[in-house]
Amino acid sequence: VSVERAEALALDAADPLASFRDAFVITDPQRIYADGNSLGRLPRAVAAVITDAMHEWGDRIVEAWDGWIDLPTRVGDRLAAVCLGAQPDEVVACDSTTVNLYKLVHAACDLREGAIVTDRANFPTDRYVLEGLAGSRGRRLVLADSVADALAVPDAAVVCLSHVDYRSGEALDMAALTRTTEALVVWDLSHSVGAIEIDCSTIDLAVGCSYKYLNAGPGGPAFLFVRRALADAMRSPIQGWFGQHEQFAMGPRYDPLPGAARFLAGSPPVLGLLALDASLDLLADAGMPQIARKGRALTSLAATLADDWLAPLGFTLATPRDPAARGSHVALRHADAWPICRALIERANVVPDFRRPDIVRLGFPPLYTRFADVWDAMDRLRGLVAAGEHHHVDPRARRVT
Amino acid sequence: VSVERAEALALDAADPLASFRDAFVITDPQRIYADGNSLGRLPRAVAAVITDAMHEWGDRIVEAWDGWIDLPTRVGDRLAAVCLGAQPDEVVACDSTTVNLYKLVHAACDLREGAIVTDRANFPTDRYVLEGLAGSRGRRLVLADSVADALAVPDAAVVCLSHVDYRSGEALDMAALTRTTEALVVWDLSHSVGAIEIDCSTIDLAVGCSYKYLNAGPGGPAFLFVRRALADAMRSPIQGWFGQHEQFAMGPRYDPLPGAARFLAGSPPVLGLLALDASLDLLADAGMPQIARKGRALTSLAATLADDWLAPLGFTLATPRDPAARGSHVALRHADAWPICRALIERANVVPDFRRPDIVRLGFPPLYTRFADVWDAMDRLRGLVAAGEHHHVDPRARRVT
Repeated sequence: VSVERAEALALDAADPLASFRDAFVITDPQRIYADGNSLGRLPRAVAAVITDAMHEWGDRIVEAWDGWIDLPTRVGDRLAAVCLGAQPDEVVACDSTTVNLYKLVHAACDLREGAIVTDRANFPTDRYVLEGLAGSRGRRLVLADSVADALAVPDAAVVCLSHVDYRSGEALDMAALTRTTEALVVWDLSHSVGAIEIDCSTIDLAVGCSYKYLNAGPGGPAFLFVRRALADAMRSPIQGWFGQHEQFAMGPRYDPLPGAARFLAGSPPVLGLLALDASLDLLADAGMPQIARKGRALTSLAATLADDWLAPLGFTLATPRDPAARGSHVALRHADAWPICRALIERANVVPDFRRPDIVRLGFPPLYTRFADVWDAMDRLRGLVAAGEHHHVDPRARRVT
Repeated sequence: VSVERAEALALDAADPLASFRDAFVITDPQRIYADGNSLGRLPRAVAAVITDAMHEWGDRIVEAWDGWIDLPTRVGDRLAAVCLGAQPDEVVACDSTTVNLYKLVHAACDLREGAIVTDRANFPTDRYVLEGLAGSRGRRLVLADSVADALAVPDAAVVCLSHVDYRSGEALDMAALTRTTEALVVWDLSHSVGAIEIDCSTIDLAVGCSYKYLNAGPGGPAFLFVRRALADAMRSPIQGWFGQHEQFAMGPRYDPLPGAARFLAGSPPVLGLLALDASLDLLADAGMPQIARKGRALTSLAATLADDWLAPLGFTLATPRDPAARGSHVALRHADAWPICRALIERANVVPDFRRPDIVRLGFPPLYTRFADVWDAMDRLRGLVAAGEHHHVDPRARRVT
């Protein structure tokens, strides 16, 4: 016998973060949502803050949202303190991860001669952005076979790596890897921020999104981190008026703000920033060390059950077994991964996601996932595959992306 | 005697768009909101669609908002049809105006050798973006003294111009001016879109925002237009996965979509795009020809009253007197413009905005501005300045931006 359900319930009873689940809107208590690593659940406080912001818009119009103009830096500073181990003026919340990566890598190329490097397994938008920049900046693009190979490229100017791999869930040691190279390393924190602890004091540059573990909503504002000592030597390629010193003087020449704020471009997405700010209250209350600790326990339970129950059914755990070496999702390889994902959604009320070619990805955001949810998800997955139910899904169903 | 208030009321009674005012949230019927050219009012339908979208997020989470992935092109196509006189696949709604201008001018530089040009009076973020691109692309930057001078620069690669000047309200003849140069002209439509008719079939490239006359909310998604025949020869500098052919194949190399969609970068701001889509329903129902016609009538009334009432008080109309040569706002120059703006807000319940150094700017969005509002705003302005009330505002008050 493997872990009993009673043991999962006991872990929930002892969980200091258990009450945070009530801070989220949950309309179907039977559904196990294991895709918060794609889109986080809606915090009740975010729903409330958006409702208030809409009322303000209706009532006060252009005079609404006192201090809205400083939201990108103010929310950036909060994100720095709550989730990133960064200092004031080092983080701004703005644009998309893609645009922010573009800005930082472009600016990093001004500081270093040489190649633009990433690993082949990195997230597609990161690879495409780097490919474009290599072309426009006249740099060699290296798509290395591994992270180690990427860091060993001798003439690298910039190396872009993901802190947590979006497929396997593997977490890299940012501090140690950053030290191994003279290149500037730009870290993509999209799959780690809000899930595990991050210490930006050990790195130079980073970007990330807010709609996964930060629960700021679909297409919510992304962020970027620039180490304070580097910022003033860097120039954003996109010189917008929100990065301008004394913006409303509307002066004749661009004179960038100090710190990360110089990477701001256009008008901030006010509703998205207010949502992120409200969501950060939850993360601040829970504390990243507690969140990360619970995440490791949740994924450890999943790993144990995968070994005990799923390995005999043809699954392989693609996520590192060392809890310190992973984020808050697990990847299960199976030749029938796609129909299994469909069947989980259609027949088992579990929401995973599928990653080509053969990964069932299960995310367990610590703020609203119970140990019993992990147990039940794995149990339903086991039952479904053992019964062969995934052979009966409609192949014309909308593809799980 | 000038125009009587009864005449304004008669114009309202005959106004075919009068009923559209009820489609907006208006909490203080006595307040005259003359700053919809900064931030448009909240349409009731937008409030409803955001409420629904939040419920969907809470309930369906990652499965919410069917077709969300196509929102940037779908809403772009609608905007093209309703407001821009553009064809399908020529417009996408995404990012900020600043980022979109950067992308288009960068891409235009691939097609043309020579200088990057604008006029000194152009909106600050446009000038700063161009200054940055001139530096990074190794082009000469020309800040011409006038639009005519900008178009006469002999080695221009790209000329960036505003369709409607954000200060004076002057509207340029885009078709005629685009024909005068071999350079690619990029038009900033921020102060014209949704206010006056636009025919993109006569131009090559354009950008604009949605939070002014399009009423899509603070920091709502911007848009860009690329003439279909040009698009496939252009490359976005920011090669994001939303511009990628078969995005979720996550293939190894960037292979851009056809049309304007290749200029998409990161994840779309779903709530903002749904808001824009809902707001476009109103513009589509009213029709841009009707909207523009009413706008010309509103600004004509303001111009007449400015001449009759305000000129004796030291005001000069800075907006063209030809109705076809302006947008939907008027600019009144006065040496005391700043305290006058403060006094209007504090003592007269009129919301204008101030533009340095000496402009009181009054915007009259046709969908929710009545002729009586224009009459009352001008009347309150006259009374306030005649009584010298602007000499009593607190100089420490928050600056009107």
